[in-house]
Amino acid sequence: MNLRSQKIAIVGSGAVGCYYGGMLAHAGHDVRFLMRADLDAVRAHGLTIHTRGETVAIPRVTAFATTAEIGPVDLVVIALKATANPALDNLLPPLLHEGTALLTLQNGLGNEEYLTARWGADRVMGALCFVCLNRTAPGVIEHYDAGSISVGEYLRPASDRARAIAAAFVEAGIESVAVENLITERWRKLLWNIPFNGLAIAAHGATVDQVLADDGLRKLARDLMDEALDSARRLGHEIPAAFADWQIDRSYAMGAYKPSSMLDWEAGRPVEVEAIFGEPCRQGLRAGALLPRMEMLYQLLKKITA
Amino acid sequence: MNLRSQKIAIVGSGAVGCYYGGMLAHAGHDVRFLMRADLDAVRAHGLTIHTRGETVAIPRVTAFATTAEIGPVDLVVIALKATANPALDNLLPPLLHEGTALLTLQNGLGNEEYLTARWGADRVMGALCFVCLNRTAPGVIEHYDAGSISVGEYLRPASDRARAIAAAFVEAGIESVAVENLITERWRKLLWNIPFNGLAIAAHGATVDQVLADDGLRKLARDLMDEALDSARRLGHEIPAAFADWQIDRSYAMGAYKPSSMLDWEAGRPVEVEAIFGEPCRQGLRAGALLPRMEMLYQLLKKITA
Repeated sequence: MNLRSQKIAIVGSGAVGCYYGGMLAHAGHDVRFLMRADLDAVRAHGLTIHTRGETVAIPRVTAFATTAEIGPVDLVVIALKATANPALDNLLPPLLHEGTALLTLQNGLGNEEYLTARWGADRVMGALCFVCLNRTAPGVIEHYDAGSISVGEYLRPASDRARAIAAAFVEAGIESVAVENLITERWRKLLWNIPFNGLAIAAHGATVDQVLADDGLRKLARDLMDEALDSARRLGHEIPAAFADWQIDRSYAMGAYKPSSMLDWEAGRPVEVEAIFGEPCRQGLRAGALLPRMEMLYQLLKKITA
Repeated sequence: MNLRSQKIAIVGSGAVGCYYGGMLAHAGHDVRFLMRADLDAVRAHGLTIHTRGETVAIPRVTAFATTAEIGPVDLVVIALKATANPALDNLLPPLLHEGTALLTLQNGLGNEEYLTARWGADRVMGALCFVCLNRTAPGVIEHYDAGSISVGEYLRPASDRARAIAAAFVEAGIESVAVENLITERWRKLLWNIPFNGLAIAAHGATVDQVLADDGLRKLARDLMDEALDSARRLGHEIPAAFADWQIDRSYAMGAYKPSSMLDWEAGRPVEVEAIFGEPCRQGLRAGALLPRMEMLYQLLKKITA
């Protein structure tokens, strides 16, 4: 499989969708964006990505207001917030032919399940984005840091199509690998997101450096990681405790970093509470884990962000 | 012992100090108030307590700006916030003769220990106030509800002086009893304060009815109570689990009640985090209890109120 011969649709054209889709379009792929607010601006001026001191200009972007106008494609990249999943029920059908793959770039757990329940497991793929982005104006994306994307199949080992997508990202200038166990990778990412995204909000705006500088909060972050580790293990995802220690250690370099959930919360946008906190709790509890801190965090965040 | 022949000083003339001290003064006791901000107003106009549709006017109030002016007394009633305890190091010595009793009306744990460490265990008594008050203007107290005060000795059974103080409150029109185990009573009160005062702040302003209406938060409140119960038991304070259930049940009648810590937090005043959350955690952990939720609540509140 080669992505060159494929039609790609981007559903959810926020910073993440525009960055990954824009870089693929810049590399010459057939990428069609679903856009609402930014549609006119992007049709007129294209996309602009400021990345590491360079500007990537994509003057001609194929963008539509409906998925009916986009029509059937080979790959749908889903970059909506997980909180907007119900919108997919109407958005996706016009994009599907028999072999259309669905690649969710969304955070946390439950998104692959959402797609599987509606459109079948065979189509479903997922990716983890390690990237720091912001949409600063219609069609304008600031790329601050990182960018790598790990692509995998849902409940299957890496496939030809996962490797082809990863190869296309690499060709487009983005670090990318195909992963053998997507959900294990999701848990590895959650190991950081649960404590740091969660405490950022629950402690009323605690940046990463503030959590690390406070002995009590740092220990709490590590205890939350242990609960997530135990959940992951019981669910068959073996992650060494040393990985949790490394997650803490590497976070010192982040300084006053605001996790994405904190930015969403501060901006009054929906926070992905179920995907990052609720679903991991439910899955861990069903597998027999004791999760007093994760459950407490989930309950507090549900109320705080309600 | 009869309180009639005793000199009483009130240190901390907020709503609590003015209410209990004012009612004793109104009943004819020799009560001397330490006051700062309200001193001139109270000297000019006395104290006014609006209570259950009645107005108790105490036109002539003995108030001073320093404890040196008050001089040695027989009973010091301490109604400062627990967060202000270090101020006692200078405030108390001028009030003490050899037999001066110290009665702390402060919340939570650690206040009797603070007094004991400095002025000896024999002097130290404590009381629990079940009352809903507000200081609405200098020298003006609104008494909304309840009012009872339980008086006890620190680490000793009820004494003659505890019974005499309780009798004086009853004579002054306030429900009062002498209790055999003051610290057991403190834990019984903490059983409510830990979840409801704590979640009110940690969930960003959740009133009692909001905690009770949310299945997750109500269960969390009850789980926090279980941790407090286990701590209390390990420390020798046997409290039946049914008491925790009753604490939940009776709270439904409170409606949109804002716990005192929430009012303090909203008003930007210091919150008694150590007395209500930190010290109970430390004592419970030392006794071997596992307190994941209480510790998490404490860490979050420390950061939120910092």
